[in-house]
Amino acid sequence: MAMRGNVLIAQGGGPTAVINQSLIGVINECKKFREIEKIYGAIHGIDGILNEEFVDLSQETSINLENIANTPSSALLSTRRKASHETCVEMFKVLSAHNIKYFFYIGGNDSSETLEIILQESKKANYDLRCIHIPKTIDNDLVLNDHTPGFGSAARFVSQGFVGINLDNKSLGGVYIGIVMGRHAGFLTASSVLGKKYEDDGPHLVYLPERDFSIETFVNDVKDVYSKYGRCIVAISEGVCDSEGTPIAVKYCKEIERDSHGNLQLSGNGLLGDLLAHYIKNGLGIKRVRVDTFGYLQRSFIESVSDIDRMEAREIGEKAVQYAVIYDMNGSVAIKRIGDYDIEYRLEKLHLIAGKTKTMDESFINRDGNYVTEAFLKYCKPLIGRSLKEPYVLRAPKVEKILAKK
Amino acid sequence: MAMRGNVLIAQGGGPTAVINQSLIGVINECKKFREIEKIYGAIHGIDGILNEEFVDLSQETSINLENIANTPSSALLSTRRKASHETCVEMFKVLSAHNIKYFFYIGGNDSSETLEIILQESKKANYDLRCIHIPKTIDNDLVLNDHTPGFGSAARFVSQGFVGINLDNKSLGGVYIGIVMGRHAGFLTASSVLGKKYEDDGPHLVYLPERDFSIETFVNDVKDVYSKYGRCIVAISEGVCDSEGTPIAVKYCKEIERDSHGNLQLSGNGLLGDLLAHYIKNGLGIKRVRVDTFGYLQRSFIESVSDIDRMEAREIGEKAVQYAVIYDMNGSVAIKRIGDYDIEYRLEKLHLIAGKTKTMDESFINRDGNYVTEAFLKYCKPLIGRSLKEPYVLRAPKVEKILAKK
Repeated sequence: MAMRGNVLIAQGGGPTAVINQSLIGVINECKKFREIEKIYGAIHGIDGILNEEFVDLSQETSINLENIANTPSSALLSTRRKASHETCVEMFKVLSAHNIKYFFYIGGNDSSETLEIILQESKKANYDLRCIHIPKTIDNDLVLNDHTPGFGSAARFVSQGFVGINLDNKSLGGVYIGIVMGRHAGFLTASSVLGKKYEDDGPHLVYLPERDFSIETFVNDVKDVYSKYGRCIVAISEGVCDSEGTPIAVKYCKEIERDSHGNLQLSGNGLLGDLLAHYIKNGLGIKRVRVDTFGYLQRSFIESVSDIDRMEAREIGEKAVQYAVIYDMNGSVAIKRIGDYDIEYRLEKLHLIAGKTKTMDESFINRDGNYVTEAFLKYCKPLIGRSLKEPYVLRAPKVEKILAKK
Repeated sequence: MAMRGNVLIAQGGGPTAVINQSLIGVINECKKFREIEKIYGAIHGIDGILNEEFVDLSQETSINLENIANTPSSALLSTRRKASHETCVEMFKVLSAHNIKYFFYIGGNDSSETLEIILQESKKANYDLRCIHIPKTIDNDLVLNDHTPGFGSAARFVSQGFVGINLDNKSLGGVYIGIVMGRHAGFLTASSVLGKKYEDDGPHLVYLPERDFSIETFVNDVKDVYSKYGRCIVAISEGVCDSEGTPIAVKYCKEIERDSHGNLQLSGNGLLGDLLAHYIKNGLGIKRVRVDTFGYLQRSFIESVSDIDRMEAREIGEKAVQYAVIYDMNGSVAIKRIGDYDIEYRLEKLHLIAGKTKTMDESFINRDGNYVTEAFLKYCKPLIGRSLKEPYVLRAPKVEKILAKK
């Protein structure tokens, strides 16, 4: 028998292109249940609870909800704040005052950990609260999930981005290094290869945080590719570490910033790229070396979104409400793959997901640790969606030389 | 009376998303004229002439030509090489051997200069050659042109990119600095504001190479915006200079690379961004400062192309052939704006375009030199094309506080 009461929805962590699909999925599904009275949104995640900053989502129009579903980045705004025993005590006062019986938290790794703390504290405090975590993360690093909403769209941007980069680099030559987001998991960096079509297309080298990174090996790898194709495109994760586990970007950086979860700030600076370019220029004497840090473009680009990701992000919000209201359960809604390709949902215990990090399976990385395998391509291709733009090449025959120059 | 003979097409300089539209425009238009026998493409621009590396474009299928038209970046590959008296002497041997009577060079500023040299040398050498320059440049910096093909698509990417960046920054706060391409002309950086919709949307500050850049003023500007909105988004051109004309990126950099046209390499490193972030962090004590260099993504992203740009790039290739064959003229095909919004084409003398740089009109930049004007918006909006994705915000009313916390 489901509890009567109000619903609170919040969004936490780094935004994605489809995070509002899940928000709208929750809102619309809630409207189907008589037990649910009001549907509130907390502004800036759990900060919004502490500050009693709620909006009444029941008063949105259906048209605007659909428009927001297609708008990237958290419509309810986000936070990186963690929950503690003390903040939970404060939060329960607010939740109780507003008769909140259901709490849906859309977020990644850190948000699931926060929700697990809230759930445990609510039990201790005898505050009856359904807590459902709705996954989203472009890092794709939640355990017990085939993949997570938000990843597919970011992977589409990275993949389509490298299609253009490859064409650009092909026309003018040299070495190109693209730094892709991903602290511990290389999924997004690995997705850089999904748009490859012709034999000599880049990226030719892919470096993932799952494997130790050595500048010496890197320079040699680039040398090999460059001598084969006269050019080289590298996709590298911002989180690559040396054999002692120190991020390469950090090794050479004096001022390092950490967020409240203890995560180092690896995005939003050009350090790693400039370092790698330096070694290629000086080590190999290649003059044209270009580096871009894909940065924040990749997680909320409005014109490159996976249709599959969009659908799944919507559904997972709907399923979250069903688990809470119909089944009266707490947990994290996880995605399981069935067939080739479809998915189904299952509710996992929060503590099994919270704060854990999934990294790329060994079978997804080649032996040399500088590229991905066919198994990864098969895994990842469906996620970036359909109607991808494809490049084409001229097939015109060469004209016979008359002056017989070389 | 048009000359009978073969056509040679080449592409030079940095590629764009629609540069192959112009290539296909030339090829298809050439087929309409009996005077034209073969349609050749030179591989890697004028390098291809010197090396006698041609492909026979007459043998492409119509389907593949259309596919290539929609593929970003020079299908014939590119070059940064300049022409000299000596290289022209070599080139004319090759052109003569292949009975080339028409040369179409698709490129920017530097390519038009190269073509002017080839034209003058051909006259000296008594080699009868029609030389038509077909503009393309994401920098939009050709004189006598309302705008240039390639710019609209890059501007669309930058504009749509900042739509996502704005949503992302709004959700988590802090300062975001996006470095946009543009050595001397700020058009592309200025286009960062075109997707703004709500009052507090960023970019809030726009810095262009047309105005002297001072780090002190910049820090103060950011301070003002940050105290108003609690966040700040900056779009800044890679080419901003101090009052002595030294690029800020160069001032602090030891190893600087120049291409054969003497241009400094400003793209493809993270230097400027890291420098600016340093001053914001230390000067204002703002912790969350993120910087991305948009880099090479912006000039050949396959999934964000302006439909208007695509059409114009195709047409300008067709017009180029008409000027050469019907009117027997040399020159550069220029775009003039008529009505609101349409364009017409005119053939300009090559020496009036060659090597000259158009920068943003004074009327496009605000008095403080840190934003654009309404006149710029009116000028630029049609160029980025139609069917743009738009963001939406929640309009749900606030829930009355019960605990009456602040």
